[in-house]
Amino acid sequence: MITFKEIQEAHDRISPFIHRTDILTSKGLNDLSGAKLYFKCENFQRSGSFKIRGATNTVLQLTKEELDRGVITASSGNHGAALSMAVSRLGSTTKVVMPNNTPKAKVLNVERNGGEIIWCNPNQSSRERVLKTQKEKSGSVLVHPYNDKRIVAGQGTVAKEFLEDLPKLDMIVSPVSGGGLLAGTLFSVNHINPKIKVYGSEPEEADDAYRSVKSGKILSNKTTNTICDGLRAQIGTITFPIIKDKVERIITVSEKDIIAATRMIWERLKIIVEPSCAITLSIVLNNKDLFIDKKVGLILSGGNVDLNQLLW
Amino acid sequence: MITFKEIQEAHDRISPFIHRTDILTSKGLNDLSGAKLYFKCENFQRSGSFKIRGATNTVLQLTKEELDRGVITASSGNHGAALSMAVSRLGSTTKVVMPNNTPKAKVLNVERNGGEIIWCNPNQSSRERVLKTQKEKSGSVLVHPYNDKRIVAGQGTVAKEFLEDLPKLDMIVSPVSGGGLLAGTLFSVNHINPKIKVYGSEPEEADDAYRSVKSGKILSNKTTNTICDGLRAQIGTITFPIIKDKVERIITVSEKDIIAATRMIWERLKIIVEPSCAITLSIVLNNKDLFIDKKVGLILSGGNVDLNQLLW
Repeated sequence: MITFKEIQEAHDRISPFIHRTDILTSKGLNDLSGAKLYFKCENFQRSGSFKIRGATNTVLQLTKEELDRGVITASSGNHGAALSMAVSRLGSTTKVVMPNNTPKAKVLNVERNGGEIIWCNPNQSSRERVLKTQKEKSGSVLVHPYNDKRIVAGQGTVAKEFLEDLPKLDMIVSPVSGGGLLAGTLFSVNHINPKIKVYGSEPEEADDAYRSVKSGKILSNKTTNTICDGLRAQIGTITFPIIKDKVERIITVSEKDIIAATRMIWERLKIIVEPSCAITLSIVLNNKDLFIDKKVGLILSGGNVDLNQLLW
Repeated sequence: MITFKEIQEAHDRISPFIHRTDILTSKGLNDLSGAKLYFKCENFQRSGSFKIRGATNTVLQLTKEELDRGVITASSGNHGAALSMAVSRLGSTTKVVMPNNTPKAKVLNVERNGGEIIWCNPNQSSRERVLKTQKEKSGSVLVHPYNDKRIVAGQGTVAKEFLEDLPKLDMIVSPVSGGGLLAGTLFSVNHINPKIKVYGSEPEEADDAYRSVKSGKILSNKTTNTICDGLRAQIGTITFPIIKDKVERIITVSEKDIIAATRMIWERLKIIVEPSCAITLSIVLNNKDLFIDKKVGLILSGGNVDLNQLLW
């Protein structure tokens, strides 16, 4: 369990290094959904995603000896860039094990922040194998992208800010992949106002969290054939218990609907977000009865997309 | 001449109907330019551009008899959508004469706001001829997109907000087409702090303002072969005198540089803006000596772009 005090301390610790991100609204999207939608814009966050919160919270708690050894992680891109940024700031180095199908924008973002990329194949076993080998070889300290209490506490600051700014929210919708953001959100919401329902949104094509919650035990992804490159990881052993216990529901979405929602956010809100978080709008639009007339907070977790081509 | 009192009154009049738009910054773009850049995000404005300011200011001053006749305008898209929105709210109708090469996103935006589109050819003479015919036929009241003191006073509220939020700006860069935004900016800046230098940015491919200021008299565009679909109009007789008198300089930019700056804003600021305003960043990056170490305000005038294809 993570206490709210840990989230509070994380917030105090990271505040000098992160943005307090804006919350946007759109009359057009409210009309379309029949709900009042509030978009927490972590795409505007330092490093382009919420991942800087957990990464900074963790890195600031490393000892000098640990930092001197350098850090290592596995990441679909955003955690790798965020960690590289946080570690560079402290004068040390970061190795990032990344799938070789990572969008170029995310690769560049890691490099721009000083991270060294080590390629793996795009599946969980290759990712774990390469990470283990590289960690042993380099002696670097592992900073896991989500299965770490310090990371979860950092990610919990998104919902904390959301509810400080909008205490009257009825619901929050978060994407779910490894579960760091969703678990952090649940810990914050559960402390601040447990009446607020929290939904997880996941691609049909990478639905391990949905099936895991349903079955009560962690199940693997059968496919990760989704354009949501940030949502292909496997739910973690630290994040799963809170999600299983406290999430209102995890709802899955088709690729077609994810692409439509991404375009809708670009066109209506005039912001660049990843499909990995536009998915939150998909579940609202696909399940209008659940959200009608409610004040719904949607976490737009990141904006690092490849602008060489459009998804549609 | 427009007095600051008129801009102040415009602001009071339109405030209930517009957003006070955010100002964004980017460490990456600051590093790249050597300046401190502040982006005033009128792409987040109601109707997707600053045009709602002048349109609302004008429409709210029409008499009931004028409103009942309906209004008519010629527009590259953004003024048409804004005017349609402002007029629909008051229960009347809008006809918009638009070039038949207008991006689809702008066409849809006019329609979504209740405007009726009348096509013209993409040149100044066709635009004026169709407008004249339709105006006579319908008896509608003309609300010119820029050559109207009420429009200029409304557009002047952008710089007023900018300087209320950031009184220490050294410079402001505004796009220039018909000159409503640039003239309004100059009236505001000249009153609030005449030491602040105002630059106009214009495509090389539609450089009538640049040549007009240089020669001291209004000259026509030789081409309007630019991707900046919002910057193809001809400088106005009301806007030109203040621009000629007060603008620090108008700087022109190549198409290639405009496209590069558009992509840079999308990628770094994570927002959707039109090339017609990304041009402001181009002139900063192309003229680093002018802007180095200065606090520079850039007016991002709109975000209505066709997302069916990318410019690059």
